[in-house]
Amino acid sequence: MMPLDICLSPELIHLYEVKGKTVVVADILRATSCMVTAFAHGVHKIRPFADLEACRQARTFGFETSGERDGKKVDGFDRGNSPFEYMGTEIRDKKIAFTTTNGTQALARCTDAGALLVGAFLNLKAVAEHAKNIGQPVLIVCAGWKGRFNLEDTLYAGALASALTFESGSVDDSVLAAVRLYDEAKGNLTAYIQDSSHVRRLGRLNIHKDIEYCLTADLYPVVPRFDGEDLVL
Amino acid sequence: MMPLDICLSPELIHLYEVKGKTVVVADILRATSCMVTAFAHGVHKIRPFADLEACRQARTFGFETSGERDGKKVDGFDRGNSPFEYMGTEIRDKKIAFTTTNGTQALARCTDAGALLVGAFLNLKAVAEHAKNIGQPVLIVCAGWKGRFNLEDTLYAGALASALTFESGSVDDSVLAAVRLYDEAKGNLTAYIQDSSHVRRLGRLNIHKDIEYCLTADLYPVVPRFDGEDLVL
Repeated sequence: MMPLDICLSPELIHLYEVKGKTVVVADILRATSCMVTAFAHGVHKIRPFADLEACRQARTFGFETSGERDGKKVDGFDRGNSPFEYMGTEIRDKKIAFTTTNGTQALARCTDAGALLVGAFLNLKAVAEHAKNIGQPVLIVCAGWKGRFNLEDTLYAGALASALTFESGSVDDSVLAAVRLYDEAKGNLTAYIQDSSHVRRLGRLNIHKDIEYCLTADLYPVVPRFDGEDLVL
Repeated sequence: MMPLDICLSPELIHLYEVKGKTVVVADILRATSCMVTAFAHGVHKIRPFADLEACRQARTFGFETSGERDGKKVDGFDRGNSPFEYMGTEIRDKKIAFTTTNGTQALARCTDAGALLVGAFLNLKAVAEHAKNIGQPVLIVCAGWKGRFNLEDTLYAGALASALTFESGSVDDSVLAAVRLYDEAKGNLTAYIQDSSHVRRLGRLNIHKDIEYCLTADLYPVVPRFDGEDLVL
Protein backbone atom coordinates (compact mmCIF):
# COMPACT_ATOMS: atom_id res chain seq x y z
CA MET A 1 0.00 0.00 0.00
CA MET A 2 1.60 3.23 -1.09
CA PRO A 3 0.41 6.79 -0.42
CA LEU A 4 -1.28 8.27 -3.46
CA ASP A 5 -2.43 11.76 -4.37
CA ILE A 6 -3.96 13.26 -7.47
CA CYS A 7 -3.33 16.86 -8.45
CA LEU A 8 -6.30 17.80 -10.64
CA SER A 9 -4.61 20.79 -12.28
CA PRO A 10 -1.02 21.99 -12.72
CA GLU A 11 -2.20 25.26 -11.13
CA LEU A 12 -2.57 23.35 -7.85
CA ILE A 13 0.88 21.76 -7.94
CA HIS A 14 2.26 24.17 -5.31
CA LEU A 15 -0.05 22.47 -2.78
CA TYR A 16 1.70 19.13 -3.26
CA GLU A 17 5.18 17.84 -2.59
CA VAL A 18 6.84 16.34 -5.67
CA LYS A 19 10.29 15.60 -4.20
CA GLY A 20 10.74 11.98 -3.29
CA LYS A 21 7.61 10.97 -5.19
CA THR A 22 6.91 9.12 -8.38
CA VAL A 23 5.02 11.74 -10.36
CA VAL A 24 2.96 10.58 -13.33
CA VAL A 25 1.91 13.35 -15.70
CA ALA A 26 -1.09 12.73 -17.94
CA ASP A 27 -2.37 14.78 -20.84
CA ILE A 28 -4.58 12.16 -22.43
CA LEU A 29 -5.83 14.35 -25.30
CA ARG A 30 -3.18 14.23 -26.60
CA ALA A 31 0.38 15.06 -25.53
CA THR A 32 1.23 12.11 -23.31
CA SER A 33 -0.64 9.73 -25.63
CA CYS A 34 1.58 10.96 -28.47
CA MET A 35 4.72 10.53 -26.38
CA VAL A 36 3.88 6.98 -25.37
CA THR A 37 3.06 6.14 -28.98
CA ALA A 38 6.36 7.62 -30.16
CA PHE A 39 8.39 5.55 -27.68
CA ALA A 40 6.46 2.43 -28.62
CA HIS A 41 7.55 3.10 -32.20
CA GLY A 42 11.21 3.57 -31.38
CA VAL A 43 11.77 7.30 -30.92
CA HIS A 44 15.20 7.92 -29.35
CA LYS A 45 14.25 10.73 -27.00
CA ILE A 46 11.77 13.56 -26.55
CA ARG A 47 12.75 16.86 -25.03
CA PRO A 48 9.70 18.59 -23.54
CA PHE A 49 9.43 22.38 -23.78
CA ALA A 50 6.99 24.66 -22.00
CA ASP A 51 8.05 27.52 -24.28
CA LEU A 52 7.19 27.42 -27.96
CA GLU A 53 10.13 29.46 -29.25
CA ALA A 54 12.64 27.46 -27.22
CA CYS A 55 11.16 24.36 -28.80
CA ARG A 56 11.53 25.83 -32.26
CA GLN A 57 15.22 26.59 -31.53
CA ALA A 58 15.88 22.94 -30.75
CA ARG A 59 15.82 22.27 -34.49
CA THR A 60 19.28 23.83 -34.69
CA PHE A 61 20.47 21.09 -32.31
CA GLY A 62 19.33 18.20 -34.45
CA PHE A 63 15.80 17.82 -33.05
CA GLU A 64 12.65 17.54 -35.08
CA THR A 65 9.89 19.80 -33.75
CA SER A 66 6.47 18.72 -32.57
CA GLY A 67 3.60 20.38 -30.92
CA GLU A 68 0.39 22.31 -30.81
CA ARG A 69 -1.20 25.38 -29.37
CA ASP A 70 -4.96 25.31 -28.74
CA GLY A 71 -5.10 21.88 -30.35
CA LYS A 72 -3.60 22.95 -33.67
CA LYS A 73 -0.20 22.10 -35.09
CA VAL A 74 2.34 24.91 -34.78
CA ASP A 75 3.26 26.57 -38.07
CA GLY A 76 6.60 25.35 -39.33
CA PHE A 77 6.79 22.37 -36.98
CA ASP A 78 7.42 18.86 -38.29
CA ARG A 79 4.55 17.25 -36.43
CA GLY A 80 1.39 18.23 -34.62
CA ASN A 81 -0.31 16.52 -31.72
CA SER A 82 -2.03 13.53 -33.30
CA PRO A 83 -0.71 10.17 -32.09
CA PHE A 84 -0.98 8.87 -35.65
CA GLU A 85 1.92 11.16 -36.56
CA TYR A 86 4.13 9.23 -34.13
CA MET A 87 3.90 5.77 -35.64
CA GLY A 88 5.76 3.83 -38.26
CA THR A 89 9.40 3.47 -39.11
CA GLU A 90 10.05 7.18 -39.79
CA ILE A 91 9.85 7.95 -36.05
CA ARG A 92 12.54 5.42 -35.15
CA ASP A 93 15.67 6.84 -33.49
CA LYS A 94 14.47 10.40 -33.90
CA LYS A 95 15.12 13.15 -31.36
CA ILE A 96 11.97 15.22 -30.94
CA ALA A 97 11.45 18.61 -29.30
CA PHE A 98 7.84 18.74 -28.10
CA THR A 99 5.67 21.57 -26.82
CA THR A 100 1.95 21.53 -26.12
CA THR A 101 -0.69 23.74 -24.50
CA ASN A 102 -0.94 21.63 -21.37
CA GLY A 103 1.12 18.45 -21.23
CA THR A 104 4.61 19.86 -21.53
CA GLN A 105 3.66 22.73 -19.18
CA ALA A 106 2.67 20.17 -16.55
CA LEU A 107 5.93 18.22 -17.02
CA ALA A 108 7.93 21.43 -16.58
CA ARG A 109 6.39 21.95 -13.14
CA CYS A 110 7.33 18.49 -11.90
CA THR A 111 11.00 18.17 -12.76
CA ASP A 112 11.97 17.94 -9.06
CA ALA A 113 10.12 14.64 -8.71
CA GLY A 114 11.90 11.55 -7.46
CA ALA A 115 10.81 9.90 -10.71
CA LEU A 116 8.84 11.65 -13.45
CA LEU A 117 6.85 9.34 -15.73
CA VAL A 118 4.67 9.87 -18.78
CA GLY A 119 1.25 8.31 -18.34
CA ALA A 120 -1.55 7.56 -20.76
CA PHE A 121 -4.28 4.95 -21.09
CA LEU A 122 -2.02 3.43 -23.76
CA ASN A 123 0.56 2.41 -21.14
CA LEU A 124 -1.70 2.21 -18.06
CA LYS A 125 -0.63 -1.14 -16.62
CA ALA A 126 3.03 -0.59 -17.48
CA VAL A 127 3.12 2.68 -15.53
CA ALA A 128 1.29 1.09 -12.59
CA GLU A 129 3.80 -1.78 -12.43
CA HIS A 130 6.73 0.60 -12.78
CA ALA A 131 5.44 2.86 -10.00
CA LYS A 132 4.90 -0.14 -7.73
CA ASN A 133 8.45 -1.31 -8.37
CA ILE A 134 9.90 2.09 -7.52
CA GLY A 135 7.92 2.01 -4.29
CA GLN A 136 7.82 5.76 -3.63
CA PRO A 137 4.58 7.62 -2.87
CA VAL A 138 2.77 8.42 -6.12
CA LEU A 139 1.41 11.76 -7.30
CA ILE A 140 -0.66 11.76 -10.48
CA VAL A 141 -0.73 15.17 -12.15
CA CYS A 142 -3.56 15.93 -14.57
CA ALA A 143 -2.45 18.38 -17.24
CA GLY A 144 -5.96 19.80 -17.59
CA TRP A 145 -6.75 22.59 -20.05
CA LYS A 146 -4.93 25.88 -19.46
CA GLY A 147 -4.91 25.21 -15.76
CA ARG A 148 -8.50 24.06 -15.55
CA PHE A 149 -9.92 20.72 -14.54
CA ASN A 150 -10.67 18.29 -17.33
CA LEU A 151 -12.49 15.01 -17.44
CA GLU A 152 -10.23 12.76 -19.50
CA ASP A 153 -7.11 13.34 -17.42
CA THR A 154 -9.12 12.86 -14.23
CA LEU A 155 -10.53 9.56 -15.56
CA TYR A 156 -7.01 8.41 -16.34
CA ALA A 157 -5.94 9.35 -12.81
CA GLY A 158 -8.84 7.27 -11.49
CA ALA A 159 -7.83 4.36 -13.70
CA LEU A 160 -4.20 4.49 -12.59
CA ALA A 161 -5.23 4.84 -8.92
CA SER A 162 -7.41 1.75 -9.36
CA ALA A 163 -4.50 -0.15 -10.88
CA LEU A 164 -2.28 0.68 -7.90
CA THR A 165 -2.96 -0.70 -4.45
CA PHE A 166 -3.04 2.64 -2.80
CA GLU A 167 -3.45 4.04 0.63
CA SER A 168 -5.71 7.05 0.37
CA GLY A 169 -4.54 8.69 3.53
CA SER A 170 -4.47 11.71 1.40
CA VAL A 171 -5.18 15.26 2.49
CA ASP A 172 -7.82 15.86 -0.13
CA ASP A 173 -10.60 14.07 -1.95
CA SER A 174 -9.20 14.05 -5.48
CA VAL A 175 -8.46 10.32 -5.34
CA LEU A 176 -11.99 9.47 -4.20
CA ALA A 177 -13.58 11.62 -6.89
CA ALA A 178 -11.33 10.37 -9.70
CA VAL A 179 -11.81 6.70 -8.81
CA ARG A 180 -15.58 7.10 -8.57
CA LEU A 181 -15.81 8.93 -11.87
CA TYR A 182 -13.64 6.26 -13.51
CA ASP A 183 -15.75 3.44 -12.04
CA GLU A 184 -18.81 5.03 -13.58
CA ALA A 185 -17.09 5.70 -16.90
CA LYS A 186 -15.00 2.61 -17.53
CA GLY A 187 -17.68 0.61 -19.33
CA ASN A 188 -17.58 3.12 -22.16
CA LEU A 189 -15.02 5.87 -21.78
CA THR A 190 -15.68 7.35 -25.20
CA ALA A 191 -19.38 7.81 -24.51
CA TYR A 192 -18.65 9.14 -21.03
CA ILE A 193 -16.45 11.96 -22.26
CA GLN A 194 -18.43 12.82 -25.37
CA ASP A 195 -19.83 15.96 -23.71
CA SER A 196 -16.50 17.01 -22.28
CA SER A 197 -15.04 20.36 -23.19
CA HIS A 198 -11.96 18.94 -24.84
CA VAL A 199 -13.85 16.47 -26.98
CA ARG A 200 -16.11 19.28 -28.13
CA ARG A 201 -13.02 21.37 -28.82
CA LEU A 202 -11.26 18.55 -30.67
CA GLY A 203 -14.49 17.51 -32.38
CA ARG A 204 -14.38 20.77 -34.23
CA LEU A 205 -10.92 19.76 -35.41
CA ASN A 206 -12.36 16.48 -36.67
CA ILE A 207 -10.19 14.02 -34.81
CA HIS A 208 -12.59 11.49 -33.34
CA LYS A 209 -10.19 8.75 -34.39
CA ASP A 210 -7.52 10.26 -32.13
CA ILE A 211 -9.92 10.29 -29.19
CA GLU A 212 -10.89 6.62 -29.56
CA TYR A 213 -7.24 5.71 -29.80
CA CYS A 214 -6.14 7.80 -26.79
CA LEU A 215 -8.77 6.10 -24.60
CA THR A 216 -7.48 2.61 -25.45
CA ALA A 217 -5.81 0.91 -22.51
CA ASP A 218 -2.58 -1.07 -22.56
CA LEU A 219 -1.55 -0.98 -26.17
CA TYR A 220 2.10 -0.50 -25.24
CA PRO A 221 4.33 -1.64 -22.36
CA VAL A 222 6.63 1.42 -22.56
CA VAL A 223 7.21 3.82 -19.63
CA PRO A 224 8.86 7.07 -20.73
CA ARG A 225 10.66 8.83 -17.88
CA PHE A 226 12.39 12.18 -17.52
CA ASP A 227 16.16 11.88 -17.11
CA GLY A 228 16.73 15.51 -16.09
CA GLU A 229 16.77 16.78 -19.66
CA ASP A 230 14.88 14.43 -21.91
CA LEU A 231 12.15 11.86 -21.85
CA VAL A 232 13.71 8.46 -22.49
CA LEU A 233 12.88 4.81 -21.95
CA MET B 1 -30.58 28.68 -19.89
CA MET B 2 -27.77 30.55 -18.24
CA PRO B 3 -24.04 29.94 -18.55
CA LEU B 4 -22.67 28.10 -15.55
CA ASP B 5 -19.17 27.33 -14.34
CA ILE B 6 -17.79 25.63 -11.26
CA CYS B 7 -14.46 26.63 -9.76
CA LEU B 8 -13.34 23.57 -7.79
CA SER B 9 -10.85 25.42 -5.60
CA PRO B 10 -10.26 29.06 -4.62
CA GLU B 11 -6.70 28.55 -5.90
CA LEU B 12 -8.15 28.35 -9.42
CA ILE B 13 -10.25 31.50 -9.15
CA HIS B 14 -7.82 33.51 -11.28
CA LEU B 15 -8.84 31.35 -14.24
CA TYR B 16 -12.44 32.54 -14.01
CA GLU B 17 -14.17 35.87 -14.45
CA VAL B 18 -16.24 36.90 -11.43
CA LYS B 19 -17.32 40.36 -12.59
CA GLY B 20 -20.87 40.43 -13.91
CA LYS B 21 -21.56 36.98 -12.52
CA THR B 22 -23.63 35.63 -9.69
CA VAL B 23 -20.99 33.89 -7.61
CA VAL B 24 -22.14 31.31 -5.07
CA VAL B 25 -19.52 30.37 -2.48
CA ALA B 26 -19.93 27.04 -0.70
CA ASP B 27 -18.04 25.70 2.29
CA ILE B 28 -20.46 22.97 3.28
CA LEU B 29 -18.44 21.69 6.26
CA ARG B 30 -19.15 24.10 7.82
CA ALA B 31 -18.73 27.85 7.27
CA THR B 32 -21.51 28.56 4.78
CA SER B 33 -23.82 26.09 6.54
CA CYS B 34 -23.27 28.08 9.75
CA MET B 35 -23.94 31.38 7.98
CA VAL B 36 -27.18 30.18 6.42
CA THR B 37 -28.30 28.80 9.79
CA ALA B 38 -27.48 32.09 11.50
CA PHE B 39 -29.54 34.11 9.02
CA ALA B 40 -32.43 31.66 9.30
CA HIS B 41 -32.34 32.37 13.04
CA GLY B 42 -32.36 36.13 12.69
CA VAL B 43 -28.72 37.25 12.78
CA HIS B 44 -28.47 40.89 11.69
CA LYS B 45 -25.29 40.67 9.64
CA ILE B 46 -22.09 38.69 9.30
CA ARG B 47 -18.81 40.31 8.34
CA PRO B 48 -16.49 37.75 6.77
CA PHE B 49 -12.76 38.00 7.47
CA ALA B 50 -9.95 36.16 5.75
CA ASP B 51 -7.56 37.30 8.49
CA LEU B 52 -7.96 35.99 12.02
CA GLU B 53 -6.54 38.99 13.87
CA ALA B 54 -8.67 41.42 11.88
CA CYS B 55 -11.66 39.31 12.87
CA ARG B 56 -10.67 39.47 16.51
CA GLN B 57 -10.42 43.28 16.30
CA ALA B 58 -14.02 43.50 15.14
CA ARG B 59 -15.11 42.87 18.71
CA THR B 60 -14.14 46.47 19.49
CA PHE B 61 -16.73 47.55 16.92
CA GLY B 62 -19.62 45.74 18.52
CA PHE B 63 -19.29 42.43 16.70
CA GLU B 64 -19.30 39.03 18.31
CA THR B 65 -16.50 36.82 17.01
CA SER B 66 -16.90 33.45 15.33
CA GLY B 67 -14.62 31.07 13.61
CA GLU B 68 -12.23 28.22 13.39
CA ARG B 69 -8.81 27.27 12.20
CA ASP B 70 -8.22 23.66 11.17
CA GLY B 71 -11.74 22.81 12.27
CA LYS B 72 -11.31 24.01 15.84
CA LYS B 73 -12.83 27.06 17.53
CA VAL B 74 -10.43 29.99 17.86
CA ASP B 75 -9.33 30.70 21.45
CA GLY B 76 -11.19 33.65 22.88
CA PHE B 77 -13.88 33.72 20.18
CA ASP B 78 -17.57 33.68 21.08
CA ARG B 79 -18.48 30.87 18.73
CA GLY B 80 -16.82 28.13 16.74
CA ASN B 81 -17.90 26.59 13.47
CA SER B 82 -20.74 24.29 14.45
CA PRO B 83 -24.11 25.26 12.96
CA PHE B 84 -25.75 24.35 16.26
CA GLU B 85 -24.05 27.42 17.78
CA TYR B 86 -26.02 29.63 15.37
CA MET B 87 -29.55 28.72 16.39
CA GLY B 88 -32.03 29.95 18.93
CA THR B 89 -33.04 33.36 20.12
CA GLU B 90 -29.61 34.44 21.33
CA ILE B 91 -28.37 34.81 17.73
CA ARG B 92 -31.18 37.21 16.79
CA ASP B 93 -30.09 40.71 15.69
CA LYS B 94 -26.44 39.96 16.44
CA LYS B 95 -23.56 41.29 14.34
CA ILE B 96 -20.99 38.56 13.86
CA ALA B 97 -17.40 38.73 12.63
CA PHE B 98 -16.58 35.37 11.07
CA THR B 99 -13.32 33.80 9.95
CA THR B 100 -12.69 30.22 8.85
CA THR B 101 -9.94 28.16 7.26
CA ASN B 102 -11.61 28.00 3.87
CA GLY B 103 -15.03 29.61 3.53
CA THR B 104 -14.21 33.18 4.39
CA GLN B 105 -11.00 32.95 2.35
CA ALA B 106 -13.07 31.96 -0.67
CA LEU B 107 -15.53 34.82 -0.12
CA ALA B 108 -12.63 37.29 0.08
CA ARG B 109 -11.50 36.28 -3.41
CA CYS B 110 -14.90 36.88 -4.97
CA THR B 111 -15.88 40.34 -3.76
CA ASP B 112 -15.84 41.73 -7.33
CA ALA B 113 -18.75 39.49 -8.29
CA GLY B 114 -21.92 40.98 -9.74
CA ALA B 115 -23.73 39.27 -6.87
CA LEU B 116 -22.02 37.23 -4.17
CA LEU B 117 -24.23 34.67 -2.43
CA VAL B 118 -23.71 32.20 0.39
CA GLY B 119 -24.66 28.68 -0.63
CA ALA B 120 -25.24 25.51 1.37
CA PHE B 121 -27.42 22.44 1.06
CA LEU B 122 -29.56 24.09 3.73
CA ASN B 123 -30.68 26.83 1.29
CA LEU B 124 -30.17 24.97 -2.00
CA LYS B 125 -33.46 25.75 -3.76
CA ALA B 126 -33.59 29.31 -2.43
CA VAL B 127 -30.17 30.10 -3.92
CA ALA B 128 -31.12 28.45 -7.22
CA GLU B 129 -34.30 30.54 -7.48
CA HIS B 130 -32.47 33.70 -6.49
CA ALA B 131 -29.74 33.11 -9.08
CA LYS B 132 -32.34 32.44 -11.77
CA ASN B 133 -34.10 35.68 -10.90
CA ILE B 134 -30.89 37.69 -11.14
CA GLY B 135 -30.32 36.15 -14.55
CA GLN B 136 -26.55 36.66 -14.71
CA PRO B 137 -24.13 33.83 -15.57
CA VAL B 138 -23.42 31.76 -12.47
CA LEU B 139 -20.08 30.72 -11.02
CA ILE B 140 -20.11 28.28 -8.12
CA VAL B 141 -16.92 28.47 -6.04
CA CYS B 142 -16.03 25.49 -3.87
CA ALA B 143 -14.09 26.58 -0.80
CA GLY B 144 -12.20 23.29 -0.65
CA TRP B 145 -9.63 22.59 2.03
CA LYS B 146 -6.61 24.91 2.09
CA GLY B 147 -6.85 25.29 -1.65
CA ARG B 148 -7.41 21.62 -2.38
CA PHE B 149 -10.37 19.91 -3.97
CA ASN B 150 -12.94 18.48 -1.63
CA LEU B 151 -15.90 16.23 -2.14
CA GLU B 152 -18.68 17.88 -0.15
CA ASP B 153 -18.35 21.29 -1.77
CA THR B 154 -18.15 19.65 -5.20
CA LEU B 155 -21.32 17.64 -4.49
CA TYR B 156 -23.08 20.84 -3.47
CA ALA B 157 -21.92 22.46 -6.71
CA GLY B 158 -23.37 19.50 -8.61
CA ALA B 159 -26.63 19.80 -6.70
CA LEU B 160 -26.94 23.53 -7.38
CA ALA B 161 -26.03 23.03 -11.05
CA SER B 162 -28.78 20.41 -11.27
CA ALA B 163 -31.26 22.82 -9.70
CA LEU B 164 -30.42 25.49 -12.28
CA THR B 165 -31.29 25.10 -15.93
CA PHE B 166 -27.83 25.71 -17.14
CA GLU B 167 -26.01 25.94 -20.39
CA SER B 168 -22.77 24.09 -20.00
CA GLY B 169 -20.98 25.85 -22.79
CA SER B 170 -18.29 26.06 -20.25
CA VAL B 171 -14.57 26.02 -20.91
CA ASP B 172 -13.85 23.16 -18.56
CA ASP B 173 -15.39 19.94 -17.32
CA SER B 174 -16.01 20.86 -13.70
CA VAL B 175 -19.77 21.09 -14.23
CA LEU B 176 -19.94 17.65 -15.86
CA ALA B 177 -17.89 16.03 -13.11
CA ALA B 178 -19.76 17.71 -10.25
CA VAL B 179 -23.19 16.85 -11.65
CA ARG B 180 -22.20 13.23 -12.25
CA LEU B 181 -20.74 12.84 -8.78
CA TYR B 182 -23.87 14.39 -7.28
CA ASP B 183 -26.15 12.12 -9.31
CA GLU B 184 -24.28 9.14 -7.94
CA ALA B 185 -24.27 10.49 -4.38
CA LYS B 186 -27.68 12.03 -3.93
CA GLY B 187 -29.43 8.89 -2.72
CA ASN B 188 -27.30 8.98 0.42
CA LEU B 189 -24.95 11.91 0.69
CA THR B 190 -23.76 11.05 4.17
CA ALA B 191 -22.67 7.56 3.15
CA TYR B 192 -21.11 8.90 -0.04
CA ILE B 193 -18.80 11.29 1.78
CA GLN B 194 -18.01 9.07 4.73
CA ASP B 195 -14.53 8.34 3.35
CA SER B 196 -13.85 11.94 2.44
CA SER B 197 -10.88 13.73 3.94
CA HIS B 198 -12.94 16.35 5.72
CA VAL B 199 -15.31 13.88 7.30
CA ARG B 200 -12.32 11.90 8.53
CA ARG B 201 -10.83 15.15 9.85
CA LEU B 202 -14.08 16.24 11.50
CA GLY B 203 -14.81 12.73 12.69
CA ARG B 204 -11.83 13.06 14.95
CA LEU B 205 -13.49 16.17 16.37
CA ASN B 206 -16.62 14.12 17.05
CA ILE B 207 -19.17 16.13 15.11
CA HIS B 208 -21.12 13.61 13.07
CA LYS B 209 -24.29 15.46 14.01
CA ASP B 210 -22.95 18.58 12.27
CA ILE B 211 -22.23 16.61 9.12
CA GLU B 212 -25.73 15.10 8.89
CA TYR B 213 -27.21 18.53 9.41
CA CYS B 214 -24.98 20.27 6.84
CA LEU B 215 -26.00 17.74 4.18
CA THR B 216 -29.73 18.39 4.69
CA ALA B 217 -31.32 20.19 1.75
CA ASP B 218 -33.76 23.08 1.89
CA LEU B 219 -34.25 23.64 5.58
CA TYR B 220 -34.24 27.40 5.12
CA PRO B 221 -35.36 29.81 2.37
CA VAL B 222 -32.73 32.48 3.22
CA VAL B 223 -30.14 33.74 0.72
CA PRO B 224 -27.33 35.68 2.40
CA ARG B 225 -25.58 38.05 0.03
CA PHE B 226 -22.49 40.26 0.31
CA ASP B 227 -23.34 43.99 0.27
CA GLY B 228 -19.76 45.18 -0.19
CA GLU B 229 -18.90 44.93 3.48
CA ASP B 230 -21.18 42.46 5.21
CA LEU B 231 -23.27 39.43 4.49
CA VAL B 232 -26.92 40.40 4.84
CA LEU B 233 -30.31 39.15 3.74
